[in-house]
Amino acid sequence: MPTKALNIGMIGYGFMGRAHTNAYRKVNAFFDLDYQPVLKAACARDKAKVEDFAARWGYESAETDWKTLVKRDDIDLIDICVPNDLHMEIAVAAAKAGKIVLTEKPLARNTKEGEKMVAAVEKAGVANMVWYNYRRMPAVMLIKQVVDEGLLGRIYHYRANFLQDWTISPDVPQGGPGTWRLDLEAAGSGVTGDLIAHCVDTAMWINGGIANLSAMTETFVKKRKHAITGKVQPVGIDDAAAVLARFDNGSLGLFESTRYARGHKALYTLEINGEHGSFMWNLHDLNHVQWFDHRIEGRLRGWTSIMVTDGDHPYLGRWWVPGLSIGYEHSFVHQIADFLEGLATGQPASPTFREALETTRVCDAIIKSGKTGKWVSLG
Amino acid sequence: MPTKALNIGMIGYGFMGRAHTNAYRKVNAFFDLDYQPVLKAACARDKAKVEDFAARWGYESAETDWKTLVKRDDIDLIDICVPNDLHMEIAVAAAKAGKIVLTEKPLARNTKEGEKMVAAVEKAGVANMVWYNYRRMPAVMLIKQVVDEGLLGRIYHYRANFLQDWTISPDVPQGGPGTWRLDLEAAGSGVTGDLIAHCVDTAMWINGGIANLSAMTETFVKKRKHAITGKVQPVGIDDAAAVLARFDNGSLGLFESTRYARGHKALYTLEINGEHGSFMWNLHDLNHVQWFDHRIEGRLRGWTSIMVTDGDHPYLGRWWVPGLSIGYEHSFVHQIADFLEGLATGQPASPTFREALETTRVCDAIIKSGKTGKWVSLG
Amino acid sequence: MPTKALNIGMIGYGFMGRAHTNAYRKVNAFFDLDYQPVLKAACARDKAKVEDFAARWGYESAETDWKTLVKRDDIDLIDICVPNDLHMEIAVAAAKAGKIVLTEKPLARNTKEGEKMVAAVEKAGVANMVWYNYRRMPAVMLIKQVVDEGLLGRIYHYRANFLQDWTISPDVPQGGPGTWRLDLEAAGSGVTGDLIAHCVDTAMWINGGIANLSAMTETFVKKRKHAITGKVQPVGIDDAAAVLARFDNGSLGLFESTRYARGHKALYTLEINGEHGSFMWNLHDLNHVQWFDHRIEGRLRGWTSIMVTDGDHPYLGRWWVPGLSIGYEHSFVHQIADFLEGLATGQPASPTFREALETTRVCDAIIKSGKTGKWVSLG
Amino acid sequence: MPTKALNIGMIGYGFMGRAHTNAYRKVNAFFDLDYQPVLKAACARDKAKVEDFAARWGYESAETDWKTLVKRDDIDLIDICVPNDLHMEIAVAAAKAGKIVLTEKPLARNTKEGEKMVAAVEKAGVANMVWYNYRRMPAVMLIKQVVDEGLLGRIYHYRANFLQDWTISPDVPQGGPGTWRLDLEAAGSGVTGDLIAHCVDTAMWINGGIANLSAMTETFVKKRKHAITGKVQPVGIDDAAAVLARFDNGSLGLFESTRYARGHKALYTLEINGEHGSFMWNLHDLNHVQWFDHRIEGRLRGWTSIMVTDGDHPYLGRWWVPGLSIGYEHSFVHQIADFLEGLATGQPASPTFREALETTRVCDAIIKSGKTGKWVSLG
Repeated sequence: MPTKALNIGMIGYGFMGRAHTNAYRKVNAFFDLDYQPVLKAACARDKAKVEDFAARWGYESAETDWKTLVKRDDIDLIDICVPNDLHMEIAVAAAKAGKIVLTEKPLARNTKEGEKMVAAVEKAGVANMVWYNYRRMPAVMLIKQVVDEGLLGRIYHYRANFLQDWTISPDVPQGGPGTWRLDLEAAGSGVTGDLIAHCVDTAMWINGGIANLSAMTETFVKKRKHAITGKVQPVGIDDAAAVLARFDNGSLGLFESTRYARGHKALYTLEINGEHGSFMWNLHDLNHVQWFDHRIEGRLRGWTSIMVTDGDHPYLGRWWVPGLSIGYEHSFVHQIADFLEGLATGQPASPTFREALETTRVCDAIIKSGKTGKWVSLG
Repeated sequence: MPTKALNIGMIGYGFMGRAHTNAYRKVNAFFDLDYQPVLKAACARDKAKVEDFAARWGYESAETDWKTLVKRDDIDLIDICVPNDLHMEIAVAAAKAGKIVLTEKPLARNTKEGEKMVAAVEKAGVANMVWYNYRRMPAVMLIKQVVDEGLLGRIYHYRANFLQDWTISPDVPQGGPGTWRLDLEAAGSGVTGDLIAHCVDTAMWINGGIANLSAMTETFVKKRKHAITGKVQPVGIDDAAAVLARFDNGSLGLFESTRYARGHKALYTLEINGEHGSFMWNLHDLNHVQWFDHRIEGRLRGWTSIMVTDGDHPYLGRWWVPGLSIGYEHSFVHQIADFLEGLATGQPASPTFREALETTRVCDAIIKSGKTGKWVSLG
Repeated sequence: MPTKALNIGMIGYGFMGRAHTNAYRKVNAFFDLDYQPVLKAACARDKAKVEDFAARWGYESAETDWKTLVKRDDIDLIDICVPNDLHMEIAVAAAKAGKIVLTEKPLARNTKEGEKMVAAVEKAGVANMVWYNYRRMPAVMLIKQVVDEGLLGRIYHYRANFLQDWTISPDVPQGGPGTWRLDLEAAGSGVTGDLIAHCVDTAMWINGGIANLSAMTETFVKKRKHAITGKVQPVGIDDAAAVLARFDNGSLGLFESTRYARGHKALYTLEINGEHGSFMWNLHDLNHVQWFDHRIEGRLRGWTSIMVTDGDHPYLGRWWVPGLSIGYEHSFVHQIADFLEGLATGQPASPTFREALETTRVCDAIIKSGKTGKWVSLG
Repeated sequence: MPTKALNIGMIGYGFMGRAHTNAYRKVNAFFDLDYQPVLKAACARDKAKVEDFAARWGYESAETDWKTLVKRDDIDLIDICVPNDLHMEIAVAAAKAGKIVLTEKPLARNTKEGEKMVAAVEKAGVANMVWYNYRRMPAVMLIKQVVDEGLLGRIYHYRANFLQDWTISPDVPQGGPGTWRLDLEAAGSGVTGDLIAHCVDTAMWINGGIANLSAMTETFVKKRKHAITGKVQPVGIDDAAAVLARFDNGSLGLFESTRYARGHKALYTLEINGEHGSFMWNLHDLNHVQWFDHRIEGRLRGWTSIMVTDGDHPYLGRWWVPGLSIGYEHSFVHQIADFLEGLATGQPASPTFREALETTRVCDAIIKSGKTGKWVSLG
């Protein structure tokens, strides 16, 4: 049974505010942990809405100013679930106040901001993590484990896509709640920081660092109305991006993200090809992973669809019985479980701010290469 | 915001006790309901274990005798999550005590017991429901809606399987926790009450009543050790069952369940074929449903894999964004949401005990036909 | 290189006449055989049409009366590709004339006719075979080999479906070219002889004899116009059939065929579940077979999709390179290749008339059980 | 019935010699054409082997010197099925001799050679075509038709891969029969001319010209033994290549090919995303195409798997019945059928040498960009 309460201060009540809160509420029922998150306070600018959110989700109190929240003595952990342009300021202040700091991905709008955040948490010596939740999909964790065990041998290729189709209509605005991801100022970049960042985070975690890359970026809809000001103004973000990359281990990388792939909603796919085997996975079928084992006798060799729901699969011993699926939200539960375990044992769960900064560096290189048309070295 | 507390008394802390409790804890964060379940008491015979369960899941108290629980004034609803041989006795007592009664499926070990339960809740006038959770899979609910709208036209075929492989080893015992489903006394039947019951419940809900049937049943492993007594004794349950059926609407039904289908873990599949269209669904890929629409222009006609995660799909507006999956556990959240909404509006959520009794009748007919080799009429 | 010509007399020029002729024309280019089929004569009642067919496909001559063809000294082999009501008469005459006799499946309209055919070919001592072509799908042959090697251990279940949707419209006539399969007189039965016969032939070949069965049959459209007479008359065939069966080895069988499964064109699916492994295959994806191997290490266990196009897969060394598919027609090439090899070595290729008679016996039992509602023993 | 014989002179008897010959032998049985190919002569250096090939496949004569063949008066068409280093010389000589010239893809080892070939056939005024067979896959042709009809609206993305795994072992030699594709001198390039060429040919045919591109190429195994000389020498070809591209219509392209993607045999995949719809197809499942139609009512929208075997699908009216698959070889039959029809009507079937030269230009740009690390304009 948990012996230590961990008081959570949640900033933001949107999609991610809900996803994280759900994780805090579930984690101790399913995982054996020393720490127990306590929903102490939710914070957002709109008083009525944040009070409603707090009541619905069980937060003990509501705040309307994150600066106040950050100073509260009864808060142990600040969780940042607001648009990217606020990540740095909040994180630095929280670190200074000695709080544990978690932030939704990406770490920041760019490397410069990210570096300040890393410096702040490291100077303060506070635990920190970025919610790159897809690492904690059981299927993805299984890939990680098997690659680490060396079963794939030398790696030749890694490819990943994150394809969506929700901004095809020119009537989708930029800025404002729900569409801040189309606003360069709020988001820092378009699909690069939002989607390719996931691909890159998983890729480097599994397959190591990226040495250099060449990218192509595009903005298909050149002007959009701003949701708040109502003005039609140029779109500054990248609607689509594609990347050629070379990993430090000599393998080739290929990444693509777009919000203009009609028919795909949240199609994060990844594949790794090694000498002795390959894995493929996608988010639309998250409980399965495809595995090719070249060591199997020839006639019976093929792509095996592993349903990652058995008790010996990562995290699955905590849920139901074989054959019964989990969903998107469970990746957040796993991530906070790992974080709390790391907190207890002193082994921080990845990715820390420092680790996530590498992904932001790659994202910056993608944007730069897209503009210059040149290969960019990450060395 | 909910205005009415509903005090839950949970009996059992196994697989279903966890699944139901998880639903009680989540439902108000995601659904707008008048009622709010309050985890008042958990009950099981083992004092240490039930206290641990209560603490972990947030029940306010623990009981070791269900008879005590049923009499407590501060309990509004009794939820029965224990083996089938206790359903009737508890349900009848709870109804007599004026409690709302929910029970995990199947309703009872047989029709005779089920009839007593129906009589008890109807006499007491208490709300009641059986947790046939698969009706509340969004994909299954979508099928139900589209069939009800008449898009399929005349129905010709309905087929459903529920295939597992966990009892192939003769070393699996019968009786005891985890394996009581192999004990005839505890379970009432084998795959018929456990698995085909789900198929039949969904089938009759979507496609109407069953007129008659012919079944084949088999027990592959004839003797197993009893988990508690340690004695090797004859196995009384059906390891596998297959059924030919005729629905009242003239369509043909085919059902099969087994725990000896190597490679299938919880493969509940269903298919309905109508004049103008067909649906296929399976539990191993629960966020998708396959749909064939014969009205589409010929060259572009085919089986459409609908990812049931859009806001206009059943229940999905309550969860995340398009493309992000939900899991097995969400069907229970949907079921309790529907129940609570029904409670507020006076429209009971299905299946009530009376509705679920029909499925038990069909199960009894399957066992009977399996023994006699004759068609059995349900008329 | 082939050293022996085998003069073919083809009766019929429809779908099967084309499929068989294509096989005769291709087989020696891809397989090393002593025998070389020579397209000597095509035969059908319509003089203009059969001459056109002969010219297009390269037959040296055309006949309009099969009785004349059967007597020709320059014919070695009679291949019967006409409706079922002519199988017996032609086969018996051809056997008496000392010809090798091949017939499209099913062997005959019923057991009685089939027995006469078996008697005729055995009395005459002529080689004979029924074109149950699906045995020669490489994926199906692979299943057969692996089952025979014992890798599946004890068999528990075998299930097969053959689902179509082409007769849903009541405007489809019965009788005449293209629709004789709906005419009881011409076909002998409906889906049972046409579709379930394939399922049963493969099943008994892989899994052994059937001991007994219980069937349900249905005719959804009760009256149809006759294509030749123009009269609306009762439909005598079974539109759909479903079967429960017990194999001699103790495993359970389940079969279903229909022409009313909207969306399915020629969906022959089969599955076999054994103690240590399972196979699934379907005709809509004929180059792949699904294989579950329980002996694999747990975390990496799953259903393997084997693409049966490698050089060590049955027949595939004769075609292209790994990854390149073959089609429906290739099963006929394989079958005639096996037949010609058997002819050279004196080891007749299966199924002979005698072997195919067993399938007809099962079909008769299905029709009988469908009418009586009783289990029928095949013993 | 065909009224005009077309005498074929086939050069080469390897994989492609067989595939093309099979097409010549089948085409008139299935398609109604004025021209009928006559297998006049096969040509290759090894006398015994070419005679054996001629006998097996029905060529009337055999030649050992292509220069002799090209001069024969009884030859109408020269079909070049030898390694790429001989394409130019043979094609130019054949054109000068007034023969129709077909060549297996790619057109040539590079643009310079290709230009000479185009000049030769255009000067001679002879019909000509390159066997980019995948255009004639029925599913691919269906995509072409639907895109041309405008159903997809504005195009945003086109991506294609061709993934194999057959050269991972360093023991695979370079040069010689079967492995000449690893020999730079014989092949001109590695996966670029062999595999990406297919992707690019289809892409530009469906989606229009490519404006510019950036590529990454890699040779994983640096040295291999030469199959003929036995010497270990540097590998000059590209083992893998990935390409970012911009089409003239403003859409983005992404291409990748490799022979180091463990588990993929001949996995040619393509996808096109438009405003209103998308298509996906792959060669391992060639009878199906995935289609997303955004115009469909929301709840029932999804990816439709069209089985391209109906009579109203391209080419399929010529084959069997709905649900019955065709294979790899049929694409060649379709291509020669289209060529022969074009010959009769004076409308040359694509791609002519001139059209195929564009693909070779793109391939050269890929190699160049791979070496320089710069974007290359195709303008």
